[in-house]
Amino acid sequence: MSAIAVKEVKERVIADNDAVAQKVRSDLGSKGVFLVNLMASPGAGKTTTLVRTINALKDEYRIGVMEADVDSVVDAETIEQTGAKVIQLHTGGSCHMDADMTMRGLEALGYDDLDVVFLENVGNLVCPAEFDVGAAKKVMILSVPEGHDKPLKYPLMFSVSDCLLINKIDAAEVFDFDMEKLKGYVGDLNPDMPVFPVSSLKGDGYDEWIDWLKEEIKKWRE
Amino acid sequence: MSAIAVKEVKERVIADNDAVAQKVRSDLGSKGVFLVNLMASPGAGKTTTLVRTINALKDEYRIGVMEADVDSVVDAETIEQTGAKVIQLHTGGSCHMDADMTMRGLEALGYDDLDVVFLENVGNLVCPAEFDVGAAKKVMILSVPEGHDKPLKYPLMFSVSDCLLINKIDAAEVFDFDMEKLKGYVGDLNPDMPVFPVSSLKGDGYDEWIDWLKEEIKKWRE
Repeated sequence: MSAIAVKEVKERVIADNDAVAQKVRSDLGSKGVFLVNLMASPGAGKTTTLVRTINALKDEYRIGVMEADVDSVVDAETIEQTGAKVIQLHTGGSCHMDADMTMRGLEALGYDDLDVVFLENVGNLVCPAEFDVGAAKKVMILSVPEGHDKPLKYPLMFSVSDCLLINKIDAAEVFDFDMEKLKGYVGDLNPDMPVFPVSSLKGDGYDEWIDWLKEEIKKWRE
Repeated sequence: MSAIAVKEVKERVIADNDAVAQKVRSDLGSKGVFLVNLMASPGAGKTTTLVRTINALKDEYRIGVMEADVDSVVDAETIEQTGAKVIQLHTGGSCHMDADMTMRGLEALGYDDLDVVFLENVGNLVCPAEFDVGAAKKVMILSVPEGHDKPLKYPLMFSVSDCLLINKIDAAEVFDFDMEKLKGYVGDLNPDMPVFPVSSLKGDGYDEWIDWLKEEIKKWRE
C-alpha cells in the first residue's frame, strides 16, 4: 500500500500564464527555493536521472519532487526511496504543466522546509515547452535511442531549455546516434546551452552535470 | 534541394471532432482507402517502421503517407525514397492531429489513386490519443528503451489503439524491459489488442505485423 500523496491539478483557463509564472518564481526566489522544470519524452529517463541527481545533492540540500503524470504513482514511489519529499500530481489528462498547476502543486507539497524542488513534467516534447511554470531553470533530457534529429522536429523545446542532458550514452553502441550532429543542431537553436552526455543508469558524466546544477543553485540563492 | 510538398494544417476550433472524423472515415470507406493513424513517442521508430512496412506492401497496394510534425521535412524525405506518395504536414505548433487537419492533409495529398494512407502523427503519447482523425485503424508503437511501465502513465493511448508494435526488440539486452509485465499492463487496458514485438531496423517480427495489416486492409475493402 503506497502512502504517496496525490494532488489533482487539472488545467484551468488562465488569462496570463506568464504573470502567474513570474509570481511563482519571485515567491520561490524570496524563500531561496530553486525550482527545476525537468522535461523530456516518455521513457527518456527523467525519474532515473532524478534519483541519481537527488542522491548527489541530498547531503547538501533539502529536496522536494513533484511528479506530474496523467495517471499512476509509479514514479513518485521510486523517488520516495531517496528520502526526498515527494508528491504525485495528476494533470486530469493534460499533456503539460502550466504555472497555475505548478503553484497548486507547490502548495500541496509544502516548500518552506526545502532548498531545491524538481518538477518532473509530463513526458512530452511539444506542449511543456510552451508553458513557463516559474522554474529557476528548465532542464531537458534527450535520450540516445530517440535519435539525433529531434532538434529539427521539436525546436521550441531545445530553444527554451537552459541545459540539455543526453541520457543513455551507455547504449550508444546499439544506436546510430551522431553526437556531433546533435550538438550542431542544438547549437543552431540555442548556442549557449550546456550539453552534458550522461548515463543516469551508470553515472557517467554526472560530475559535470552536478557541478553545473550546484553552481546555478548557488547563484539563485545569493 | 528537397521537392517535398509541405502543407500547413494549423488547428482550428471545431465543435465536433467526432463528426468530422466520421465524415473522413465514411468518405475513405466509400473509396476503399485504408487510413492508418500511427502514434508513438518521439524517437520510437515511426518513420523506420513506415519504411519497412511500405516496402512490404508496395507491390500489392498504392501507398500514400502524411508526415505530421511541428517542423522540418526530414521524415518525409526518408519516406519519399520508398516511392510512396508523400506530403509533409506542419501543425503550427500543435501537439496532435485532429480530424479536420487530417481532412485538409488528405485533400492536399490527393488520394484518388491510393489504396492505403499512413498518417504519422506528432510524436506524443498524450494528446493524439484524444482525437479520432477518421482512420480505419489506430496503430501505436512503444519502443523498448521507453520502458514497460508506459501503459500505467499513458493509459488512454494504450486503450484506444487497435494494434501495438513493441519496437527496437534488437536492443532488448541493453534495457531492463519486461515483456510479460508490459503485456499484463496492456491486457488490463485493452485485452483484445494484438501486440507484435518487432525490430523495424532489422525486420524481426514483421511477418505477423504485415499479416495482421493485410487482413485488416482486406476486411476494410470488402
